[in-house]
Amino acid sequence: MKRTSFAGMECSVARALDVVGEWWSLLVLRDAFLGVRRFEDFQRSLGIARNILTDRLQTLVDYGVLERRLYSERPERHEYRLTDKGRDLYPVVLSLMRWGDRWAADETGPPMVLTHKACGHDVMPVLVCPDCRTDVEARGMTWRRREAGDPAAVR
Amino acid sequence: MKRTSFAGMECSVARALDVVGEWWSLLVLRDAFLGVRRFEDFQRSLGIARNILTDRLQTLVDYGVLERRLYSERPERHEYRLTDKGRDLYPVVLSLMRWGDRWAADETGPPMVLTHKACGHDVMPVLVCPDCRTDVEARGMTWRRREAGDPAAVR
Repeated sequence: MKRTSFAGMECSVARALDVVGEWWSLLVLRDAFLGVRRFEDFQRSLGIARNILTDRLQTLVDYGVLERRLYSERPERHEYRLTDKGRDLYPVVLSLMRWGDRWAADETGPPMVLTHKACGHDVMPVLVCPDCRTDVEARGMTWRRREAGDPAAVR
Repeated sequence: MKRTSFAGMECSVARALDVVGEWWSLLVLRDAFLGVRRFEDFQRSLGIARNILTDRLQTLVDYGVLERRLYSERPERHEYRLTDKGRDLYPVVLSLMRWGDRWAADETGPPMVLTHKACGHDVMPVLVCPDCRTDVEARGMTWRRREAGDPAAVR
């Protein structure tokens, strides 16, 4: 079943979903962030049909989010590793995890604990303004269409 | 076509996707964050079939992410507003937008500009450790299964 493409929409959320909005893609990426690299390990972790997994991995490779690397010649074996473009999806996966921890965990609580290596604390990262460094929430932000006078990229 | 449910997976990313991983749901939420509230306005913005939009809105209401409120009695009219649970998805939408801005924008650049009301700067929020307040990226974090000794919730 072919999905609608959002690529033509003038919206970065839609364009991002065009790459990672497919069923399973974000769970494949979650596993990649957990260190999974090999087809068999993705398959074991996700429990999906091999043909669907093959298709999702190929799509992520085609988009440049994962790269396929030969790690054994005999027998020929490949592994899938995050590219820079793929690693930059970390905030997406983390934001989903944070929300799931808060609003969809069962009575046993969040299944995973994250540790920030630099300071050693168990934490759940938060969004802040890169300028004033205070926490950001929806009500504290406004949006406008970018116009001619605006810089091409925002910090 | 019924999708696989991820709710049984012991993973907060999977559980979050169970709520918002459906096609269009995150674009409905994007519009809600932009201030859209009425069926006709969602429909105009998204350009999807009315029955699909009805279904997506109802699902988000059922999950408690949106609430349906009567705003006119004659004629009877409802609007859809983000609940606290819905507003807490802001980092997910923002993270997708940020990634789309960086990796999927066309030659005209990112379509939208965000302004942080508190400081007045045009910014794209970043993820930081809530403890040491330094920027967080995938390589700087480790994950482990939560065990008996770990607190039920992490900051």
